[in-house]
Amino acid sequence: MDIALLGGTGDIGEGLALRWAHDTSHRVIVGSRDPERAETKAEEYATELDSRGVDATLEGLGNVEAAAAADVVVASVPAYHLTDTVEAVADALDDEDVLVSPAVGMKRDEDGFHYNRPGAGSVTALAARAAPDDVPVVGAFHNLAAGRLANLDVTLDWDTVVVGDDHDAKETVIALADGIEGLRPLDGGPLANAAEVETVTPLLINVARHNEGMHDLGVRFE
Amino acid sequence: MDIALLGGTGDIGEGLALRWAHDTSHRVIVGSRDPERAETKAEEYATELDSRGVDATLEGLGNVEAAAAADVVVASVPAYHLTDTVEAVADALDDEDVLVSPAVGMKRDEDGFHYNRPGAGSVTALAARAAPDDVPVVGAFHNLAAGRLANLDVTLDWDTVVVGDDHDAKETVIALADGIEGLRPLDGGPLANAAEVETVTPLLINVARHNEGMHDLGVRFE
Repeated sequence: MDIALLGGTGDIGEGLALRWAHDTSHRVIVGSRDPERAETKAEEYATELDSRGVDATLEGLGNVEAAAAADVVVASVPAYHLTDTVEAVADALDDEDVLVSPAVGMKRDEDGFHYNRPGAGSVTALAARAAPDDVPVVGAFHNLAAGRLANLDVTLDWDTVVVGDDHDAKETVIALADGIEGLRPLDGGPLANAAEVETVTPLLINVARHNEGMHDLGVRFE
Repeated sequence: MDIALLGGTGDIGEGLALRWAHDTSHRVIVGSRDPERAETKAEEYATELDSRGVDATLEGLGNVEAAAAADVVVASVPAYHLTDTVEAVADALDDEDVLVSPAVGMKRDEDGFHYNRPGAGSVTALAARAAPDDVPVVGAFHNLAAGRLANLDVTLDWDTVVVGDDHDAKETVIALADGIEGLRPLDGGPLANAAEVETVTPLLINVARHNEGMHDLGVRFE
């Protein structure tokens, strides 16, 4: 499978790129608005993997070229860049592709972090709105802590809830998530169930802030 | 500690009553609008515990008498009964008591279960509004599956996030939660963070519905 990580130069894009390149044989393409930056980061990730004895193929491309080259396109950008990013690559997507949205909208006040629900119902629904009608959109990887995800010394023990209306697209993403060691994909049902998944992220931050020794949290369903 | 479970005749009230009576030496008072029903259920729980060799003291009382007799009052009623229930026992509460709200408001549509956020911001905030101003209100036990909680054959492995603005009241509830074997209380910060905690409940139901072999789910933060 060819996977593009738009905004793959930071945050959870970095962690997903490293984990897929480390744990699977998928082709991983790091996308960025700045192709040079994408290339630099792809080399950085390859060096990191090389130091662990993994000979990984990682490319760096502009977001549009990355999307065009991939079967699965992960829009790993902050929520406020999501619509722009998806619209910018729209012509590179078709009904054979899968667009994955891991972004979460949050606001912070003096009490803590809160879910900032968009009018569309969820950030994943925003991605679906921005994407061409024939491109299936799947929500996944919303609740992964970027720092721990990108640290290959850490063994993960997390669930990720996958939501979407296109059965095959969802199965594709579930299989991709399952390829990451220590990550268990769970089916969360249709895309309309995304808000409840996204809301876990500010909760994880609040819990980490108020409990000593807890940080970079993910979630398990037992 | 003397604990009253308003609406302790069903759902998570039953499980909390059984677990506290089984795992701790707290005095457990089962409350109901119908005192006879409360008494019948309290006897039922005592019989269940007796069959496991636990000689537990469980009383059944009307909700008002139960609230008056307790230090910690858990309003284990559905969200749509919460305001009425709290208002009905208001005169029996004072600033030495702690009112605990585990209720979650949900709505169901063809896609799944969704968090039904009240205008107050959360169901826990609704409880705080309904309670007398001097009574500290703590949100806890929102994400416990009733069936598994009430089945003493099952060893729990769950977290419960505790939110509240009164430090001492929150510590009291954290200690009570900690007394239940297999339940780990986590501090979620102020009461204003309750909505994110409550939202986990419809998510747990959606995940259980869409993944074979998963049911009666709770959550762990890792």
